Amino acid sequence: MAKLYFRYGAMNSGKSTGLLQAAFNYEERGQRVLLAKPELDTKGERQILSRLGVSREVDFLVPAGADVVALFRRHASGDDPDALVGHVDAPSVACLLVDEAQFLEPEQVDGLLRIAVEEGVPVLAYGIRTDFRTRSFPGSARLLELAHTLEELKTICRCGRKAVFNTRKVVDPVTRTERFVFDGDQVAIDGVEVTYESLCAACYLEESDGRLG
Amino acid sequence: MAKLYFRYGAMNSGKSTGLLQAAFNYEERGQRVLLAKPELDTKGERQILSRLGVSREVDFLVPAGADVVALFRRHASGDDPDALVGHVDAPSVACLLVDEAQFLEPEQVDGLLRIAVEEGVPVLAYGIRTDFRTRSFPGSARLLELAHTLEELKTICRCGRKAVFNTRKVVDPVTRTERFVFDGDQVAIDGVEVTYESLCAACYLEESDGRLG
Amino acid sequence: MAKLYFRYGAMNSGKSTGLLQAAFNYEERGQRVLLAKPELDTKGERQILSRLGVSREVDFLVPAGADVVALFRRHASGDDPDALVGHVDAPSVACLLVDEAQFLEPEQVDGLLRIAVEEGVPVLAYGIRTDFRTRSFPGSARLLELAHTLEELKTICRCGRKAVFNTRKVVDPVTRTERFVFDGDQVAIDGVEVTYESLCAACYLEESDGRLG
Amino acid sequence: MAKLYFRYGAMNSGKSTGLLQAAFNYEERGQRVLLAKPELDTKGERQILSRLGVSREVDFLVPAGADVVALFRRHASGDDPDALVGHVDAPSVACLLVDEAQFLEPEQVDGLLRIAVEEGVPVLAYGIRTDFRTRSFPGSARLLELAHTLEELKTICRCGRKAVFNTRKVVDPVTRTERFVFDGDQVAIDGVEVTYESLCAACYLEESDGRLG
Repeated sequence: MAKLYFRYGAMNSGKSTGLLQAAFNYEERGQRVLLAKPELDTKGERQILSRLGVSREVDFLVPAGADVVALFRRHASGDDPDALVGHVDAPSVACLLVDEAQFLEPEQVDGLLRIAVEEGVPVLAYGIRTDFRTRSFPGSARLLELAHTLEELKTICRCGRKAVFNTRKVVDPVTRTERFVFDGDQVAIDGVEVTYESLCAACYLEESDGRLG
Repeated sequence: MAKLYFRYGAMNSGKSTGLLQAAFNYEERGQRVLLAKPELDTKGERQILSRLGVSREVDFLVPAGADVVALFRRHASGDDPDALVGHVDAPSVACLLVDEAQFLEPEQVDGLLRIAVEEGVPVLAYGIRTDFRTRSFPGSARLLELAHTLEELKTICRCGRKAVFNTRKVVDPVTRTERFVFDGDQVAIDGVEVTYESLCAACYLEESDGRLG
Repeated sequence: MAKLYFRYGAMNSGKSTGLLQAAFNYEERGQRVLLAKPELDTKGERQILSRLGVSREVDFLVPAGADVVALFRRHASGDDPDALVGHVDAPSVACLLVDEAQFLEPEQVDGLLRIAVEEGVPVLAYGIRTDFRTRSFPGSARLLELAHTLEELKTICRCGRKAVFNTRKVVDPVTRTERFVFDGDQVAIDGVEVTYESLCAACYLEESDGRLG
Repeated sequence: MAKLYFRYGAMNSGKSTGLLQAAFNYEERGQRVLLAKPELDTKGERQILSRLGVSREVDFLVPAGADVVALFRRHASGDDPDALVGHVDAPSVACLLVDEAQFLEPEQVDGLLRIAVEEGVPVLAYGIRTDFRTRSFPGSARLLELAHTLEELKTICRCGRKAVFNTRKVVDPVTRTERFVFDGDQVAIDGVEVTYESLCAACYLEESDGRLG
């Protein structure tokens, strides 16, 4: 039986690189994959971009409210409205790879599980567990509940320990200095420049003065 | 640095056995451990009971609303109000083991992380991920967000695949027959006899007619 | 497809308990399992004994030179020469569990892989990785090469870190004092009383004056 | 305490990509890493090359018979004979990353463990477990014995299952056709063109007519 995998990691842990490598591995063996990501917060951007310098366009974006199973079936069958010519003889899909999966809606994550179980296609969902206040995103909360397998992608904190949390820093538009913030919306609003840094739990608690979310 | 571990598994995956074995391993090496579990739903029961037949009393229960860090410190220091004689020279605690951790409150899970990071004591929290409707419990939701390491304890479905979900069955008081239910409170109310069965995702969706929560 | 799992851990990490729990989980769901262990060094002892106090007899011992696939088939079919009455209608076997798997011969481990792949029966092999000189046993060396999945069962060193190595201590028959030894046969010979202690790499190197095997 | 990690995977599972991503993650946080690989079979080639298209030069090669601890110390201290100018104020090294670690000598793997335990520097060793006859290489055999943590990098077989074994194919110089071979030296000799394909255990046994090594 195919499975739903949640490969989670702090920001800058190499999730997109891992996804692109997995896609490469399938294709190198002559198998077909589909790549997708949530439309939310991407502003229509269709690229999956690895910080190592590799990038690739997704096969489809998942809009808010979309039925991810129907989307998958349409693209898997080659009945792609964006394609110039339908793939009449599209080979079956060996794997669905989803980037930024934390931004999916919970029902869309349910759809990923159905794709694995009912369509028989393995789903590799890559994303972060929690926001800058140590709270899960809607998509990651559901993935943590549903995924057959939870696999961590590791990265390191500035202190050398494993990073587990993400922090947000606001950049002063004039001085370019950064300061940690522990209040605000889960997805940063336009007009405020922010950066993120992955920290271990000890460094997080030090910066937040002991606050956890 | 000490870590918070969430060792999760479906019902009847051997969580209590694992906990008792871990406690045994520490003590066999001359180290002191503390065992705890949430008071919720235990009706005051202080035993950790393995289906293999091994059992042991916890060192403390965690009542609703309790400050788990303060509780831990009090018991670690030997200043145990339940003890007949205070352990004046109590050795330091090498590990805190928590059973049924899904029933903790989110703030109490925050406390477990603080015990690991600020007190330097590893915390092994054992519990189930989700209820019979594939929704996490308050404690497990927070553990999935915060734990340094997520480790799965596996068990098998009736079909031989790995079980990932828990199902509830209501037992007819007269005929003793059981039927699956997919509605109801997270914690079964008194007066209705229920049993639980761990299923894989495919068997779950078959029994639920495709419902997920 | 069924898989061969190697669940390895230092001595006293709870391997037998884990095996007995896994067997219990299968049987609780109405499935049949077979338990086995190598005859080597067991002196005919047929018990799997957990330090937690649980024990159970194996279904068959694996003698030196034996064909483990043939042995498995004979016992799975119910054609058990040790049984008083053949199980004419023996249900199919859902899992083969092997204790002390480090003592198997390499070809017998090949057989375990064949049982998984060709007979379609999952095999859970429990054992230790290395001897007191950090060298693998014949069976564990082959399991580390062949197993589909390597899963670690953890235990702790006297210093609180994870134990990864095993050390041997010789007990003085008169004074009952123990001293670490780093020379000798892989399996201790009769007539010399030895004990074992699991250590982390740092404590091992300290006791061995920097020797590794 | 720093640890020795063995991140193993079948050929073409993305090991070099993983190594380069890990190096990137450290450096992005302002930390210094060292990259190395065995000189054996590299013909002096100093590049680590990912099939995704990313590449980077190692800091040092490990020649046959070399003392890997001494090599590490010399390069960590900035006393690099290959460097035009010594790094007088070289920052301490946060991580040593080793590619193609299966080609190290067993004593050199011992050295990696010492670097982790005695120098306090984490070592990430990437390599394959076994050759085309399912036998470990000298370096991987020792890593499987010694590493604190074994982490699998997964890839897929042509049939869609997880690949665990590597197979060798000889390419006919005239017809360019390939055929599987299951005899020959562990490292292919010059003059014969070979390719490798990662297979699951079932496909391996099918191609080898049931041979395992």
